[in-house]
Amino acid sequence: MKCDLRGGLGLLFTLAVGISVVLGAQEPVAWVPKVRAWIAAHQQPVVRELLDLLARPNVAADRPNVRRNAEHLRGMFEKRGFRVELLETAGNPLVYGELKVPDATRTLLIYSHYDGQPVDPTGWKQPDPFTPVVRSAKDGREIPAARDLTRFDPEARIYARSASDDKSPIVMMLAALDALHAAGTAPSSNIRVVLDGEEEAGSPSLVPAIAKYRDQLAADLMVILDGPQHPSGRPTIAYGARGIARVDLTVFGPKAGVHSGNYGNWISNPAQRLALLLASMKDDDGRILVNGWNDGIEPLTPEEQSMLAAVPEDSSAMLRAFGVSAPEKAYPKLQDALQYPTLNVRGLSSAFVGSGARTIIPDSATASIDIRLVTETPAGAMIARIRAHVAGRGYHIVEGPPDDATRTAHAKIARLTIFGDGTAAFRTSPMNPQARSLAASLAAVHGVEPVQLRTLGGTVPISPFIRELGFPALLVPTVNFDNNQHEENENLRLGNLFEGILTVAAILKMDAPVR
Amino acid sequence: MKCDLRGGLGLLFTLAVGISVVLGAQEPVAWVPKVRAWIAAHQQPVVRELLDLLARPNVAADRPNVRRNAEHLRGMFEKRGFRVELLETAGNPLVYGELKVPDATRTLLIYSHYDGQPVDPTGWKQPDPFTPVVRSAKDGREIPAARDLTRFDPEARIYARSASDDKSPIVMMLAALDALHAAGTAPSSNIRVVLDGEEEAGSPSLVPAIAKYRDQLAADLMVILDGPQHPSGRPTIAYGARGIARVDLTVFGPKAGVHSGNYGNWISNPAQRLALLLASMKDDDGRILVNGWNDGIEPLTPEEQSMLAAVPEDSSAMLRAFGVSAPEKAYPKLQDALQYPTLNVRGLSSAFVGSGARTIIPDSATASIDIRLVTETPAGAMIARIRAHVAGRGYHIVEGPPDDATRTAHAKIARLTIFGDGTAAFRTSPMNPQARSLAASLAAVHGVEPVQLRTLGGTVPISPFIRELGFPALLVPTVNFDNNQHEENENLRLGNLFEGILTVAAILKMDAPVR
Repeated sequence: MKCDLRGGLGLLFTLAVGISVVLGAQEPVAWVPKVRAWIAAHQQPVVRELLDLLARPNVAADRPNVRRNAEHLRGMFEKRGFRVELLETAGNPLVYGELKVPDATRTLLIYSHYDGQPVDPTGWKQPDPFTPVVRSAKDGREIPAARDLTRFDPEARIYARSASDDKSPIVMMLAALDALHAAGTAPSSNIRVVLDGEEEAGSPSLVPAIAKYRDQLAADLMVILDGPQHPSGRPTIAYGARGIARVDLTVFGPKAGVHSGNYGNWISNPAQRLALLLASMKDDDGRILVNGWNDGIEPLTPEEQSMLAAVPEDSSAMLRAFGVSAPEKAYPKLQDALQYPTLNVRGLSSAFVGSGARTIIPDSATASIDIRLVTETPAGAMIARIRAHVAGRGYHIVEGPPDDATRTAHAKIARLTIFGDGTAAFRTSPMNPQARSLAASLAAVHGVEPVQLRTLGGTVPISPFIRELGFPALLVPTVNFDNNQHEENENLRLGNLFEGILTVAAILKMDAPVR
Repeated sequence: MKCDLRGGLGLLFTLAVGISVVLGAQEPVAWVPKVRAWIAAHQQPVVRELLDLLARPNVAADRPNVRRNAEHLRGMFEKRGFRVELLETAGNPLVYGELKVPDATRTLLIYSHYDGQPVDPTGWKQPDPFTPVVRSAKDGREIPAARDLTRFDPEARIYARSASDDKSPIVMMLAALDALHAAGTAPSSNIRVVLDGEEEAGSPSLVPAIAKYRDQLAADLMVILDGPQHPSGRPTIAYGARGIARVDLTVFGPKAGVHSGNYGNWISNPAQRLALLLASMKDDDGRILVNGWNDGIEPLTPEEQSMLAAVPEDSSAMLRAFGVSAPEKAYPKLQDALQYPTLNVRGLSSAFVGSGARTIIPDSATASIDIRLVTETPAGAMIARIRAHVAGRGYHIVEGPPDDATRTAHAKIARLTIFGDGTAAFRTSPMNPQARSLAASLAAVHGVEPVQLRTLGGTVPISPFIRELGFPALLVPTVNFDNNQHEENENLRLGNLFEGILTVAAILKMDAPVR
């Protein structure tokens, strides 16, 4: 079914225009008005289904409640004809659902997660983050008896933990299936759904689950429904995400802090030496000086460059919001900056500062560093480059606190404390045919070019899962960018919920004929 | 009396040998054996007088108890014929005593302090830091009924708050007067004593007291009895002390921490920039690069150089104790290092390090800096040099948190937070005739050259008092160097108490005839 149906939207895309999607006089997609009408008529059941899901506490560590979520989700998917299984892992179960579509030759694996960030109810405006409330955008007041409304202001928002991250995409998906069914049409792909119950805890059970469930998880394309849409409000595709490695760099001074008067100018200062080390790694323009930092990264192709340039970004507004007058000179454009690995000092510590500071030469000084990785620069190689750089500056590198013999033998002693194995980056080629089909479908259905991100700057815990499964993956984020993700008063703009249904419908219908 | 009697010891010193004191075949000082015999016979009353004084709590903030100390001291000095006054100040009183000596033409002002550091009894081996105990050096056990002993092992120690800092020098002084009286001889100078009740709180009342009590405080030489003797155990003179200025340097980043993935490589990092700033101020060899840092400091004269070289110091042992393999390359010799102002990073802070670190570009980074001053480099000038250096690196310097307009206008923003006005250095010329007399007397009485320190590396709160009074001052520290000063289990080695009586006697008898 895939091959003979692909011409309709596939022709919208040509290699000649690189990764952009030509919108022109193409025919409107026949099912779209029907789906829009269904959404307009079914705001109440969609909102109610989400409110009911949000009322179930879902912090990953709260395993009994997480399982209650899983059982509830089982019911939601079974209602739509999915064959559902809870795939047991060492941690919380994966909710797995499969929906076969007659004649479909492609299988999509759709990933979302049903756990949420831990909550501190004292920071919320409502009594309980698991008792969702709907608030008006105009005055921020709670809308009473919101369950009874049949139409909502798209600017109104639901406030609850996981409202945007990541329960609403699950509801969008089920509503999209209902809407397509009501419109008398079917998805163009077989659908497999996997819902993670530990994403906010780093998805520790995902990769181990592959060994046990590889057959169920196999697909042609993975679509990750997670994260915030581009602030422009346009449909968004991200073809990758940077990875991360974390390392603390400690420079050792005297065994214990020594009096800065009695020994100042004579005993060297580890905080000063740490500053010199860090300064040797990155210059005032943001250029990273560690040898080989960007090794293996090819220059961007003209297509990739035009993809980055096409991302609509108001740099001045962003800088103003951050209170920063200018970006790093090394990477004045944000999208460029995200294509390369970082070397970021995320924290510094040595003795004390402020009015409680003691007049000492400290015993040690530590910089906590995170390195955002790209696919060409894996964690191990980057840690090795830092290690070589530190050693190259005359440091003896220790694995633990230095003993007396080590202290006697070496004038400069440093330690690298590595936190875990890191999370790898992933990047799917935007030229991948499945990716092109998905982009074209989004463009045709929404009538606007999607924002296409070659990579997210951040890291998704699902990366190792993607790499291990070995087939292409991309992210389609749908929720409002200002959703207070991971914070108090997490929220979902209802307009994003309703438009998200259309977005998921476009995914489910990719490569289908226009009418 | 001073002029015709000074030849005896004065001749021991000649300009040709610089500041060293020639010990040769000079005549033994007649009163010394008598004073030694007195000390040997009077260990019990001396120790008892100290134990009684130590039993009085003396934390500066505990004003009623501090006043009880003052009243007790009044009695101790009156017993020796002093005219005593409590000089009232805005804080605790100064205990002031005056003893006129017939025919004396010189007046010494002897300074000690009778307050002590705050105590945390939980850290002490004894129940109460104000119930002194005497412990054997052999097994560290408490010696029972120590008050009843008439002879003490010089290695035994008294444990109590202020045992060494600074009540024992007061008892040494009074015992020295008793011993000289018993030996049938008198001090060679008029004695004025001022005992500070707020030294451990920074001596805030000393300088203001001068306006009111300048006449009482006038003298030819101030002798400060405070601090630990040189570890060699030899009598020690310090002709000065470095001052101190404290400043925190903060570099500002975005208004709030931003996601290191979403914005890494694009928003510049204040911790990195702080590292670059600090690195620009001092190199890996410890050389300070701030413009004009040592301006006004003359090269050391050959006499000064030989004075520094004569200080007995086991650098390797010190470095081993600190767990450091080598000193700063800029100042490989400790005594050299102490002659110059420092630039010491006493603390660093930015966001978090360790397993709790967040993956952000921090909003700011702060280095806490202390600058040890010498007389040629006052606090204000040094802060101004740091300010000029920071500005010279392109920073706009703010006085408080930057507002939006400032953030928009300036790419690099830093703040200097200055803590107080600093404490000035003081330095008395070792060539000062009074200083030479004192050094010669110590040499002759102890039969060993005193260790002479051109300056202490640390700072004494009394510096502004010295500078304001305007006559020469020097320190004669007497207590054991390993006395746990300012810490739990502060202690005094009894050998230092007994030898200290002889040291104070040497001061009281300076320039007197040998027999």
